[in-house]
Amino acid sequence: MRIPEVEQATGVKIRWRPFNLRTILQEMKHIPFADKPAKCTYMWRDIERRAAMYGFHVRVPAPYPLRENALANKLALIGMQEGWGKDFIRASYGHWLQEGEESGSEPNVSKSLRECGQDPKRALDLARSEHGERSLAAETGEARKLNIFGSPTFVVGTELFWGDDRLEDAISWLKCGRVQR
Amino acid sequence: MRIPEVEQATGVKIRWRPFNLRTILQEMKHIPFADKPAKCTYMWRDIERRAAMYGFHVRVPAPYPLRENALANKLALIGMQEGWGKDFIRASYGHWLQEGEESGSEPNVSKSLRECGQDPKRALDLARSEHGERSLAAETGEARKLNIFGSPTFVVGTELFWGDDRLEDAISWLKCGRVQR
Repeated sequence: MRIPEVEQATGVKIRWRPFNLRTILQEMKHIPFADKPAKCTYMWRDIERRAAMYGFHVRVPAPYPLRENALANKLALIGMQEGWGKDFIRASYGHWLQEGEESGSEPNVSKSLRECGQDPKRALDLARSEHGERSLAAETGEARKLNIFGSPTFVVGTELFWGDDRLEDAISWLKCGRVQR
Repeated sequence: MRIPEVEQATGVKIRWRPFNLRTILQEMKHIPFADKPAKCTYMWRDIERRAAMYGFHVRVPAPYPLRENALANKLALIGMQEGWGKDFIRASYGHWLQEGEESGSEPNVSKSLRECGQDPKRALDLARSEHGERSLAAETGEARKLNIFGSPTFVVGTELFWGDDRLEDAISWLKCGRVQR
């Protein structure tokens, strides 16, 4: 949600590349937050406090983990290929984190697609097609090659910066090759 | 290392409470970084970049996990009871992260104790005593009750802030009841 503001303030352009984090976490034998109540409670509280810092309201905890995680990723990726991906992701996260409607499931999916001018049936057919499947596998493979293990991750050359709270570090690295306050 | 500077700049006083994080992580069935090469590599790189941001040099990766984790915690805690704890922790982390000498093991332990004016034998006997054992168990119990699952965690009332990168959030919360930029 804050990327447009950051891009405008810094002159840096960020390329969005959706991938399937869950595939990578499963390969790492990562035990999700869902298993760890103290950490999960903290995660939502941290998101809530920091969203407020950026001026965004969130209603948490939101449904998690997402049942249709892969479909959400495929739609986002098809959207990137066709030019409506960022709008779709923003709409979908908004309905998820502000209204509690799970990303990747109805009514979130069709509502979000319509909000960025897309016919839900066409986009869903494409996302569920062999092309959608292959696109997501390819981008997940790229993420794996980059040693990505979380989302969002910001990549500057070979340097990884994991988490919204490392976006400023990434921009600093791009601008002067080190992390500055 | 940066706490004195933060305390001076903000007027906030931070109370240090060593506890045994490993006990809590084991209860949570946490799989440590050591199992996750991509995440572990990232952890050290993030520490290196951010230490440089604060003006600290670190030589990473340092030995990890620590074999004598509990002894390091007990010494820190005894030190807090006797008034030399912060100096001991700074010395011990310095030898660990700057010179690769494992915290909790020799030569780090005796060197760090001597640097804060302590007789190694006396301090080690006390740390390994029933009192040292009980003190650490009690403080780890307090951490568990607070739902702490990582270190450092900053506690402001009932709010938790996990990680060096949340220290500013914690201070902001203390000063105005919300997280500010």
